Amino acid sequence: MKDINKSNVLKVPPELISFLKEGDRFFIATHINPEADALGSALALSMALESLGKETFVYDRDNVPEFYRFLPGYEKFKNSTNGLQPSHFNLILLDCNSLKRAGIEGIRFDYSAVIDHHATEKSTTHGSFGDIRWIEPEAAATGLMVFYLIKDLGVPITREIAINLYAAISIDTGTFRYKNTTSEVLRVGAELIETGVSPAYIAHSLYETWSKERFDLLIMALNTLEIRDDVAIIYASKEMYKKTGANPADTENFPNFPRMMKDIKVSAFFKEIGKNDWKASLRSKGNINVAEIAALFGGGGHENAAGFEIKTDLESAKKSLLKALSKEKIHS
Amino acid sequence: MKDINKSNVLKVPPELISFLKEGDRFFIATHINPEADALGSALALSMALESLGKETFVYDRDNVPEFYRFLPGYEKFKNSTNGLQPSHFNLILLDCNSLKRAGIEGIRFDYSAVIDHHATEKSTTHGSFGDIRWIEPEAAATGLMVFYLIKDLGVPITREIAINLYAAISIDTGTFRYKNTTSEVLRVGAELIETGVSPAYIAHSLYETWSKERFDLLIMALNTLEIRDDVAIIYASKEMYKKTGANPADTENFPNFPRMMKDIKVSAFFKEIGKNDWKASLRSKGNINVAEIAALFGGGGHENAAGFEIKTDLESAKKSLLKALSKEKIHS
Repeated sequence: MKDINKSNVLKVPPELISFLKEGDRFFIATHINPEADALGSALALSMALESLGKETFVYDRDNVPEFYRFLPGYEKFKNSTNGLQPSHFNLILLDCNSLKRAGIEGIRFDYSAVIDHHATEKSTTHGSFGDIRWIEPEAAATGLMVFYLIKDLGVPITREIAINLYAAISIDTGTFRYKNTTSEVLRVGAELIETGVSPAYIAHSLYETWSKERFDLLIMALNTLEIRDDVAIIYASKEMYKKTGANPADTENFPNFPRMMKDIKVSAFFKEIGKNDWKASLRSKGNINVAEIAALFGGGGHENAAGFEIKTDLESAKKSLLKALSKEKIHS
Repeated sequence: MKDINKSNVLKVPPELISFLKEGDRFFIATHINPEADALGSALALSMALESLGKETFVYDRDNVPEFYRFLPGYEKFKNSTNGLQPSHFNLILLDCNSLKRAGIEGIRFDYSAVIDHHATEKSTTHGSFGDIRWIEPEAAATGLMVFYLIKDLGVPITREIAINLYAAISIDTGTFRYKNTTSEVLRVGAELIETGVSPAYIAHSLYETWSKERFDLLIMALNTLEIRDDVAIIYASKEMYKKTGANPADTENFPNFPRMMKDIKVSAFFKEIGKNDWKASLRSKGNINVAEIAALFGGGGHENAAGFEIKTDLESAKKSLLKALSKEKIHS
């Protein structure tokens, strides 16, 4: 076991505090296809700034997914800037660090701050974005950063803020099961519980609100299980969406199921997104770096969770993946 | 949401501390069919007492299940008292509160202490067992009680002790997802991490070490899914054990899967244990009390997790259960 338990309490840059205290109007944006860390961080920060008398506009290009609509204040999210003058707003970019990831390229803002726990995207041709950048790749979640930020702003953490932050931290740590779970994460969780969060309610909302259609699709996908050495492959096809009444977005989390098996080192899930067009999601255990595998196919991600798109038939896609994986294992 | 967040730090009875400090030889026993709270609590306490120079004998009637053999010191467990003089030992009964639950009726000890978070069993004809009884039905896990006990004994919590306690607390709180997860539970978790526990390693050991046979049996059981109103029923038959190479013990946790669906209020899992002989495991959400349902069939359990045995064919067993549930719902 590596020592992952260093308890570095995060330090908020003072210039970020000044930026938030001095501005009046903030445009809070987060990445496309938002999950609970993006949504919860944005809503918590918006609530904190509004309690200081600031105006906030909370934006995501995509809708808040149905299953995240238990987050207090989710209806603040807008996906259009119609009638707004963004240049009168300061931008706060959360849980991502380029305008592209937020789908807001071309919009002009006054000043901008970036708050994120993802490493800086290297593809940015114009260098890194943001007048103020607070990037903490070691932080378990952006929600954890926003927790410290709100405290440093001197704003009391209400129950509504706490629920958003607890959900944010939960989703990015697998509710305290992933490698990024430190003692600091649990201590912040404890503090949020003390403001009135019910951990059971959050876990229920995140993990036990599947539709029957989604569950049927999971069973159907599990029935496609194929194991080659230590690689497990499952898939969901268009025909299966039709049969169950589920849709491709319902497959979130499917690649994690085969990971339950002790001898599986890589779990791959293929979902059909078009004719001879598949999206592959990879999950790995230990030191097999699936981000490197995904990169071979033009995709990306993290060490243990990555993905790519491949335009071919399913059998060829599987073969290409297995080939790439067997090479990776020879080299590692 | 109910307020489940009161942070009552547990108080260890002083007479228990004296009992442990004064004795020299301790027989540590826990319940039959042990899980991580029973095993981890016993091992942690044994290590702490041995560091004080005491002799301990760690007993369970049943073997340590294969998947719990990551617990440091698990090989201390004996399932025979051959060659031992129990009357020269003080008994410590952990995670249960009757000799029957530990399968050690008829054995005579010197003095005895009971440390448990289950309510006292009412069926005991001779009153409650134990010269010293520390029972905390509000405590999330016996492991949490043992944590405070070890601290009060003045013994430093080593990494090996911490892993046992972290696993104990994890299993009884669903790794911080059940209703019993309080801020105190997370703070104790944080302290254990700081002694060197890796939360990801514990979660992996508890949840990601399934055999392929077990996973195949799960898929086969999910394929039997039947939904009647808000009740989900799945089963595993002898034929399915044979086909997959799995066994009935591998079905632990199966009843939880259909709970993922938002419209399901009760999930029932039937496993075949003999000809026309089935064991039913019930899981419920909210205020449907499945312990009451199980009691109708001579079984028992907790409000949201209970079970019973029924000797009939599968179809009749399902029908009887659905009938009992529909009555319960009319009355509740």
